[in-house]
Amino acid sequence: LKRTTSARELLLAIGRGRGPTLRGQLESELRAAIRTGRLPGGTALPSTRALAADLGVSRGVTVLAYEQLIAEGYLTAATGSATRVATRPSHSAAPAAVARSVDAPRYDFRPGLPDVSVFPRRAWLSSLRRVLDAATGDALGYPDPRGALQARTALADYVNRTRATVAHPDRMVLCSGYAQGLRLLAAVLRSRGVRRVAVEDPGHGGQRADLQAMGLGVRPVPVDGGGLQVDRLRRLDVGAVLVTPAHQFPTGVVLAPERRAALLEWAAARRAVVIEDDYDAEYRFDREPIGALQGLAEGAVAYLGSASKTLAPALRIGWLLLPAALVDRVALAKLHADHGSPTLEQLAFADFLERDGLDRHLRKVRPIYRRRRDALLAALKSRLPGLRVEGVAAGLHLMVSLPPGTDEEALADAAMTQSVRIYGAGPHRSRPGPPALLLGYASLSESDIEAGVALLARVLATTASTARPRRARIWDPAERALAARVAADDAERGRQTG
Amino acid sequence: LKRTTSARELLLAIGRGRGPTLRGQLESELRAAIRTGRLPGGTALPSTRALAADLGVSRGVTVLAYEQLIAEGYLTAATGSATRVATRPSHSAAPAAVARSVDAPRYDFRPGLPDVSVFPRRAWLSSLRRVLDAATGDALGYPDPRGALQARTALADYVNRTRATVAHPDRMVLCSGYAQGLRLLAAVLRSRGVRRVAVEDPGHGGQRADLQAMGLGVRPVPVDGGGLQVDRLRRLDVGAVLVTPAHQFPTGVVLAPERRAALLEWAAARRAVVIEDDYDAEYRFDREPIGALQGLAEGAVAYLGSASKTLAPALRIGWLLLPAALVDRVALAKLHADHGSPTLEQLAFADFLERDGLDRHLRKVRPIYRRRRDALLAALKSRLPGLRVEGVAAGLHLMVSLPPGTDEEALADAAMTQSVRIYGAGPHRSRPGPPALLLGYASLSESDIEAGVALLARVLATTASTARPRRARIWDPAERALAARVAADDAERGRQTG
Repeated sequence: LKRTTSARELLLAIGRGRGPTLRGQLESELRAAIRTGRLPGGTALPSTRALAADLGVSRGVTVLAYEQLIAEGYLTAATGSATRVATRPSHSAAPAAVARSVDAPRYDFRPGLPDVSVFPRRAWLSSLRRVLDAATGDALGYPDPRGALQARTALADYVNRTRATVAHPDRMVLCSGYAQGLRLLAAVLRSRGVRRVAVEDPGHGGQRADLQAMGLGVRPVPVDGGGLQVDRLRRLDVGAVLVTPAHQFPTGVVLAPERRAALLEWAAARRAVVIEDDYDAEYRFDREPIGALQGLAEGAVAYLGSASKTLAPALRIGWLLLPAALVDRVALAKLHADHGSPTLEQLAFADFLERDGLDRHLRKVRPIYRRRRDALLAALKSRLPGLRVEGVAAGLHLMVSLPPGTDEEALADAAMTQSVRIYGAGPHRSRPGPPALLLGYASLSESDIEAGVALLARVLATTASTARPRRARIWDPAERALAARVAADDAERGRQTG
Repeated sequence: LKRTTSARELLLAIGRGRGPTLRGQLESELRAAIRTGRLPGGTALPSTRALAADLGVSRGVTVLAYEQLIAEGYLTAATGSATRVATRPSHSAAPAAVARSVDAPRYDFRPGLPDVSVFPRRAWLSSLRRVLDAATGDALGYPDPRGALQARTALADYVNRTRATVAHPDRMVLCSGYAQGLRLLAAVLRSRGVRRVAVEDPGHGGQRADLQAMGLGVRPVPVDGGGLQVDRLRRLDVGAVLVTPAHQFPTGVVLAPERRAALLEWAAARRAVVIEDDYDAEYRFDREPIGALQGLAEGAVAYLGSASKTLAPALRIGWLLLPAALVDRVALAKLHADHGSPTLEQLAFADFLERDGLDRHLRKVRPIYRRRRDALLAALKSRLPGLRVEGVAAGLHLMVSLPPGTDEEALADAAMTQSVRIYGAGPHRSRPGPPALLLGYASLSESDIEAGVALLARVLATTASTARPRRARIWDPAERALAARVAADDAERGRQTG
């Protein structure tokens, strides 16, 4: 073994004023030298006395540093012999998987994304300030897994007033966005014996995948101009149904009154749970929003909502309003998942609701979004006059039929070369269907909408149709990129071991 | 069917200045009357003209209200006949499960709870203000599932500096507290073929349950004065091991240097993953904290930390630092679980870290907690001199041996009658072991510690020992209460159907 004798050979340099303490610097330098292999395992270190003299520090510094690194496993000491660098097993560290973020296109027609540039920062900060001023220990310790009582109370009042629900704080569980709420609910339903859930077709592809990931089978039920074809439920052996009654995703239709009644009758007869996804009911431009189904049958409906489409997705504020039989179970599932959502933001949201902040914000954005919808309709009419448009009355996106044989994915790829991101309907269909796009308009200015549609029209004119269009499974670009990297890594490992 | 003819018979009252719009009031009144059964299914409503006249409102109000309630399913209309109240299926709504919060005791010796009354509110609010002032659309849209880049960067710098890790922002995933991080990691390990995980015994009972809930078997490995008995790992067929090397939970011992080396050798030979729970490494009162294992073997160690024990559990800020092969998979699992944690709080945490807010806070609280530890030691010495105390050097709790035969649960119940909450070690043992308590001291004042221990000593003196003490499975009172309610409900349903 090589006998190292001086700080110069160790290439250690420490100095006053360079870091928190001389000892801390010495430890860091030694750790780095050992990690990089510059000091290989087995190397003998100089004595603490010699090193202290070399570095011009007191011997206490070197003694404590060696002790620390012995405790951490970087060095080893044996009585009567030199302190040495510990021999470390070589770990085959794969090169870092650099998870690049997906490049943001100039025109992103992402459906369901509100305009976050109008997020009410000042009001939100004021709410946060009031909450922090008033916060007691309860607000800073481990959260109630259902969410802070004040937040559940303010939310119950809000949904009762604006969504015609029958909500009580004891029936509410706050969660991290709609996505977590659906997963928690799915896990609880499964633990209560539900094995299959009916879903709308077309219907949200991510939610279908969420249900499947939680061990539930999904049974697609067609949607027509009156929403879910409720009569088809009778032929299915399902314990629950996931519906978007106020504004069907992605077609934008409203569940017809007689079907609302039939749906609740079916649920009562089957003792099935109706999962009501009230995802963007606040946006109905030409008349009043339709009240929630939950208000008609609170014992049968598990209602989900979120602030992602009204305020900002980054808040990750969602909620469940549950039948009595489910609320404790969902709360326990929430506790197990993450011990509850962050409390200060819940309290800020409560304060914001109590001061009518959300009403004010919606009054402000509704006309903005309506104008953007009108701009999108006008652009489509002038640039792509042949295409049928659905879902005009409400929401944050339109559904646009494409010429038969159009490959949604090829079109999306071609549009991306023009920095236009569009979203095919394919991932939201359980079975192949006519090609269509979902065009979100809320987060784009009117001139961007016009420019984006002009580019899209040019791309569409040069995209050939095909007899067998590709089918995409995942709609979200971020998820798609991550899943592709994981799949590539799986394949690579398969090659290595196969 | 009864023919209702007037607003007075309907008991409807609306008026100007009582709500947002006359129509909204009318709709709310009708919904409420239908829900409560005051207007039973089939009841015919007066014509819109007659009702408008009765109420003294324009006919437009009644027409639009009826249309709205027809769309929502409260009313039905058939051409040429009166609008009627819809017949609703009766849902056997169980009485609301009133989920009471557990009463807070006067003296709560909860282990691991920091003193949230010293939470740096002003600095945190300043960070939030800066973040909201500077926030771009990226900060308010759908989050990066791994967490905001700025937060991952600040955290990587922080753990590298204070925990001697080898962290890079690309290897970090922010999550909702430690609990979610462990669950995400467990799910990914399972998907990669891991079936069993070694855990410390005693070791955190909640984490053992988390691993099991994610489908992993656990294999307990005894802990002695040098931490995990690493040589016992060789006899086990496990793909990972969960360890608390810097400060073992709950005993408070430090993993001995030679065992650190042996653990990493074992992991390299088995290609196993070391899950390093660095839960309260920041609190070491008598010397420097021990650096993380991760810094010695970044390719083999999945490192978890959180702000719950340094700042406040309510923030729900936790993080994972992962080997390259796991990071995309954990990010995808995080996306599926909840689409990422709230962004604004991550950015506030980044700002807080960048300004050395956490260092400053820890410098402030460490001496406070040390004094409280000393107060607890003094109180135990004077009131309960016979009991052996462990885990003194670090952390936020002590472990106190109880006289043989003491029933931890009976003692805890008796203490609660004196408004003292104590925590038995039982839920953290894989096998029955000698009775002991975990006494957290960080969130109690010195005088409360003295008073609480005095009460505890009195209770202990009157608690009889037993040959077969009860064993508790769940340590957390909130979880215990929820789980008990769910179990009682299950039993009730079993009786009803059985």
